[in-house]
Amino acid sequence: MAFSNPVVEAGVAGLAALFRERAVTPSEAVEVYLSRIERLNPRLNAFLAVDAEGARAAALASGARWAAGRPLSPIDGVPIGIKANIASVGLPLHAGIDAYRDQVADHDAVCVARLKAAGAVILGVLNMHEGALGATTDNPAFGRCQNPHWSGFTPGGSSGGSGAAAAAGLCAAALGTDTMGSVRIPSGYCGIFGLKPGRGRVSTEGVIPLSWTLDNVGPHARSAEDCRLVFEAMAEGAAALSAEGRPWAALDFSGQVRVDPRVVWAFEDRLQAARDLGLAVETLRLDDYDFGAVRRLGLLISEVEGHVVHEARLAERPEGFSRAFADGLAWGARQPAPRLAKAYRELETTAARLRARLSGYAGLLSPTTPQFAFVFDDPVPVNQADFTAMANVAGMPAAAFPSGLTGGMDGGLPLSVQVMAWTEADALDLAQTLARPVFTPPDFAG
Amino acid sequence: MAFSNPVVEAGVAGLAALFRERAVTPSEAVEVYLSRIERLNPRLNAFLAVDAEGARAAALASGARWAAGRPLSPIDGVPIGIKANIASVGLPLHAGIDAYRDQVADHDAVCVARLKAAGAVILGVLNMHEGALGATTDNPAFGRCQNPHWSGFTPGGSSGGSGAAAAAGLCAAALGTDTMGSVRIPSGYCGIFGLKPGRGRVSTEGVIPLSWTLDNVGPHARSAEDCRLVFEAMAEGAAALSAEGRPWAALDFSGQVRVDPRVVWAFEDRLQAARDLGLAVETLRLDDYDFGAVRRLGLLISEVEGHVVHEARLAERPEGFSRAFADGLAWGARQPAPRLAKAYRELETTAARLRARLSGYAGLLSPTTPQFAFVFDDPVPVNQADFTAMANVAGMPAAAFPSGLTGGMDGGLPLSVQVMAWTEADALDLAQTLARPVFTPPDFAG
Repeated sequence: MAFSNPVVEAGVAGLAALFRERAVTPSEAVEVYLSRIERLNPRLNAFLAVDAEGARAAALASGARWAAGRPLSPIDGVPIGIKANIASVGLPLHAGIDAYRDQVADHDAVCVARLKAAGAVILGVLNMHEGALGATTDNPAFGRCQNPHWSGFTPGGSSGGSGAAAAAGLCAAALGTDTMGSVRIPSGYCGIFGLKPGRGRVSTEGVIPLSWTLDNVGPHARSAEDCRLVFEAMAEGAAALSAEGRPWAALDFSGQVRVDPRVVWAFEDRLQAARDLGLAVETLRLDDYDFGAVRRLGLLISEVEGHVVHEARLAERPEGFSRAFADGLAWGARQPAPRLAKAYRELETTAARLRARLSGYAGLLSPTTPQFAFVFDDPVPVNQADFTAMANVAGMPAAAFPSGLTGGMDGGLPLSVQVMAWTEADALDLAQTLARPVFTPPDFAG
Repeated sequence: MAFSNPVVEAGVAGLAALFRERAVTPSEAVEVYLSRIERLNPRLNAFLAVDAEGARAAALASGARWAAGRPLSPIDGVPIGIKANIASVGLPLHAGIDAYRDQVADHDAVCVARLKAAGAVILGVLNMHEGALGATTDNPAFGRCQNPHWSGFTPGGSSGGSGAAAAAGLCAAALGTDTMGSVRIPSGYCGIFGLKPGRGRVSTEGVIPLSWTLDNVGPHARSAEDCRLVFEAMAEGAAALSAEGRPWAALDFSGQVRVDPRVVWAFEDRLQAARDLGLAVETLRLDDYDFGAVRRLGLLISEVEGHVVHEARLAERPEGFSRAFADGLAWGARQPAPRLAKAYRELETTAARLRARLSGYAGLLSPTTPQFAFVFDDPVPVNQADFTAMANVAGMPAAAFPSGLTGGMDGGLPLSVQVMAWTEADALDLAQTLARPVFTPPDFAG
């Protein structure tokens, strides 16, 4: 199953070819996405604001460059959506928090400035979990964002709008932010690819942080190659050395993380696929890695730093924060400083230990999440971010890629595998190699 | 004026020549220092424990290596004292805190292990400010350490014993630790050289921390070359790129830090000396650097992290902590976590700003301290560490070097200049070039 519209089917990488061949102009591509947003977004509530005028102007300029044979980059003219905590001049910048509802960005985030400098077209702003603290995107102020595969199911979060919009073909790619897994979880739940870059590889300046220690900006897209193109347009600094050639580690999480058997099955299936391709895959246990402790550590750091980020607005407009979000930040505010000092130190020692344990490998394969998309109002699984958080702790790149569908009673919800690696390129290459075909949500294929 | 004993006069660098020429054996050198400690330490209270047996055994082994023409390093056989918060197997490890009085190290700190691997002889353990939180070395549990230049004056701190012992010729060199200036301040007050290495260049593993974020281990010695030899025996990782060839910056602190006129005079005299040597020296103001704010930042981080370090012992043996020290740690414990989160973030942004401001320069010259050694029980100047803390914040190497004597009513107390640079070698080279001769304390010259 694929998108019937060739512009949508082209994703990011395919658009440049269409533009070069003059089969499609950037303006035409933008119109395709704007009309899809108009037609399909009401079912999803992924886009919260659309900048049709700005997108059309940017597409026109891009079209002139392509016509002159001088595109700025391979993503010149590519329509991209951004999460509502990332600044793009003139667009809302509220991080899904009611208290900031009327805030409009007066400058571009560095990552957005880099995308624009590469010629990308910003379509609008995407729904997210309130303040990026949570993973259902059941937003009390801006409404639920639906999973394009099954309405009533969460798209994951916190970048739920980004995952849903990219999966449903409402944009060629989307930007999300990832503190403990917030790019990879919705990419996994929505059946697409997502990349959390290594720490420091994409600037977070101009992003409303949850945790400035753990946050990363990364792309959601319908192929690993598409993620790579968007990432490279934003990337700064030198990539680490590739570790390709070393064996891959496959995480043996038994007894440590409770994982749905369908997730296990899809994970083992992809490991077998890797071995069938002749890749060396060795099982690795991380008995000294305490998933529960890391979860509490990440939450502590996020709720303390989140309090610092929002304390002024909390004092001015307390009613603009949901009870759950405000309670989390208040808990952070009440913690004693020595507890936070220990948490930062523990984060560093855990990172060093994890990196040392992985040093002999090309990277680590695991499920992206222990479960898959669930029904809104169902209890949120506490271990949802246990696999994804490892990469935030270690500061390593990690990509989520599709690994099949559940089928049956769950209505064919996407399953996902995560690959952590030393470089973004290594992670994306393996994701591309091992992914099962992307699952176009049937209701959005046309 | 110099030391009449040629072993003491030889310092670190000269000893290797004496050993090589068989003019002196390591055992003879150790006996010189052991007898000086026995004779002179009662006037100083610098050494709190001496390991005569261990030192003699180590010297004997070193002598065999020199006799065989196979010394382990240029510091093989060199007698060194260590601060009481640095672990050396079998020696007391109490950080100047009564509550740990009976603690004996059961392993070597990494820096000590590296010195021993280079053949150095550990003489014993040196007095310090209680817990390294303070700069007078007026230790309530282990007694005052005197300034060798004038009894009744502080040697500075927190590594006061290290500064005093090296200055008085009770060891060839000493190790100290430096959180906001604790190597450079006593080196300055005692008229010798001190080096705070760049962050991460010398392991702090096996050191009782004050602040694991800001602590550094560094050498005190009677020449810059001696500091270099001891530093290189301990150093890990690659040095940063030298910035020699760029102009030096001279800090214009007027209106920001109140500095004693004699300190100003000595500083300007050394700047003139630099210009006379043909060095490019440009005046630099750091108007966006808030000395008071950095001081409060360092104190907050130190008192919070210090609380984490000592909380177990504080609960078990509260009477083993002085009121002042316990009050400082208790204040740290009471701070809310968001305040600490902001402090760490402010530390990072201040460091980045400072490094950016210095990026066009070979480094920064300033006084080491705004004043010089003062009488015990006099009020402690609040701005004592304002110049030294800059290097801890920036994570940059910094050396203190002698710049003259006050003379007159103050009894000829040492003055000192600090050079911050991008590499330890750059800092030490300039220190060697610009230092006025080291001031051998008259009472200890014989």
